Amino acid sequence: MTAKLLDGKAVAARIQQEVKDAVDDMKAKHGVTPGLAAVLVGENPASQMYVKMKRNRCAEAGIESFGHELPADISQEDLEAIIADLNADPRVHGILVQLPLPDHLDEQQVLQSLSLDKDVDGFHPINIGRLAMKGREPDFIPATPYGCMVLLQEAEKLVDGFKIAGSNAAVLGRSNIVGMPMSLLLVKANATVTVVHSRTRDIPGIIQNSDIVIGAMGRPEMIKGEWFKEGAVCIDVATVKIDDPSAPKGYVWKGDFEFEKAKERVGAISPVPGGVGPMTIAMLLKNTLRGAEIAIAKGIKA
Amino acid sequence: MTAKLLDGKAVAARIQQEVKDAVDDMKAKHGVTPGLAAVLVGENPASQMYVKMKRNRCAEAGIESFGHELPADISQEDLEAIIADLNADPRVHGILVQLPLPDHLDEQQVLQSLSLDKDVDGFHPINIGRLAMKGREPDFIPATPYGCMVLLQEAEKLVDGFKIAGSNAAVLGRSNIVGMPMSLLLVKANATVTVVHSRTRDIPGIIQNSDIVIGAMGRPEMIKGEWFKEGAVCIDVATVKIDDPSAPKGYVWKGDFEFEKAKERVGAISPVPGGVGPMTIAMLLKNTLRGAEIAIAKGIKA
Repeated sequence: MTAKLLDGKAVAARIQQEVKDAVDDMKAKHGVTPGLAAVLVGENPASQMYVKMKRNRCAEAGIESFGHELPADISQEDLEAIIADLNADPRVHGILVQLPLPDHLDEQQVLQSLSLDKDVDGFHPINIGRLAMKGREPDFIPATPYGCMVLLQEAEKLVDGFKIAGSNAAVLGRSNIVGMPMSLLLVKANATVTVVHSRTRDIPGIIQNSDIVIGAMGRPEMIKGEWFKEGAVCIDVATVKIDDPSAPKGYVWKGDFEFEKAKERVGAISPVPGGVGPMTIAMLLKNTLRGAEIAIAKGIKA
Repeated sequence: MTAKLLDGKAVAARIQQEVKDAVDDMKAKHGVTPGLAAVLVGENPASQMYVKMKRNRCAEAGIESFGHELPADISQEDLEAIIADLNADPRVHGILVQLPLPDHLDEQQVLQSLSLDKDVDGFHPINIGRLAMKGREPDFIPATPYGCMVLLQEAEKLVDGFKIAGSNAAVLGRSNIVGMPMSLLLVKANATVTVVHSRTRDIPGIIQNSDIVIGAMGRPEMIKGEWFKEGAVCIDVATVKIDDPSAPKGYVWKGDFEFEKAKERVGAISPVPGGVGPMTIAMLLKNTLRGAEIAIAKGIKA
């Protein structure tokens, strides 16, 4: 058996086109242009690159970008004042605070200061609480796990007999931005979820029993191909840069899964890169569109 | 092997005594008497009995009780006005809203209107969000799962080689008041947690592999004694009244576990009744004491 490829790039392009069409429609009908503000504290090259990619995708989808590049030593008070301004700015429908923040800042307090209506990353504790609670829905679902859920829905179309509901799912990792919200989303979708982490004893045994495996540990190829259950659906969120002098660029990207061996056994698998990465940005655009819809529903106009 | 009994009644009595000593101390040092307000909407006999039990335990521990028995048809606005008064009342350090509320009320909105400093049930979405998030702590842990964690810590003393961290834990049920917060607490305590529910395929297989089993489904004796792993630590939250003409009272209480057979195999087990039930009230008293400590730290005095 050879796995179906979960082509995040293609799915993300489709979603981005849907967002663009909806944005065009919104501009025509309501005169509203969705706007996303990115708040970046300090000069972390990876964060800067990521924010730049987000701006480019926003531009392609017709979403306006507002950048706030702040000095690494900004005070809590000044950062919260900037967020309060963005909360009040009717041109801004989504605010993302690029994490991690420098150590002297209280991340929890910063995230909690975001307007719930603009929390497009879904990291406000109220949104996380609603994600955990039965019968509640967050205003925004964190973009990376949201993208994984969309890829799982794609897999339902591609893999015979695969259904998220009722399946056994292993989520590898319990970070606030991927593993934890991912496991909460899968519980909501009626999967039987096991949260796997560094203290877990028998990782191979859990993988062998899982119809869905989400890799979000950042441990290159730690999960061996032969561990996977035949026909499983495997989504690799990890993206680690590994030096490789034989590669054209001198490096390669690796995920948590031993991809080449896994794809001989499993039903569907996402590649690294080109799997979850593009989905994250597409879902962020979708969340920003949603932020603008919330503003319109509340009668707020720029 | 015969299991150790996790005697919730005895542990709860010990905690209640500790709370009472701390309350006496607080009255002497700060002139503050902790106060707990119970808000009960409509005439649900089970809820009324439960609130009465809480009042009695409060009285024993030196905690003042404030009861609010409200008509079943109270409006959302009037209920929120009462909560706003309790939020502002310096004699009140904990507010519990007895759930479930009648259908016409928005439970989410009511819980979110509670002051975070008085949310002794820990059901405010911000507290649930913090429970889910790594590196964050809720101000209050929901009483029933909190009580289960204390019983698990007791089991660490009673059962050779048993440690919560690193163990496999199955949480049966995903309710907002027990299963879900329980699974989040166990992930925080470094157990490898599997959330089991009505859509789970192979419950016996999961139980067989679990060092910790938490029963919170309310399905009398659904979990058979022979499914348990030898030496497992088993906590039964379920309490279902079953008619039994042969019993002295005409009924018996049953939990999710087939108790008599389980106790021949497992390392420790909580009885029904006398296990988790008394712990829930003890932890609520402890949370109320904590609410009073928060008020003192903020300089609020009645």
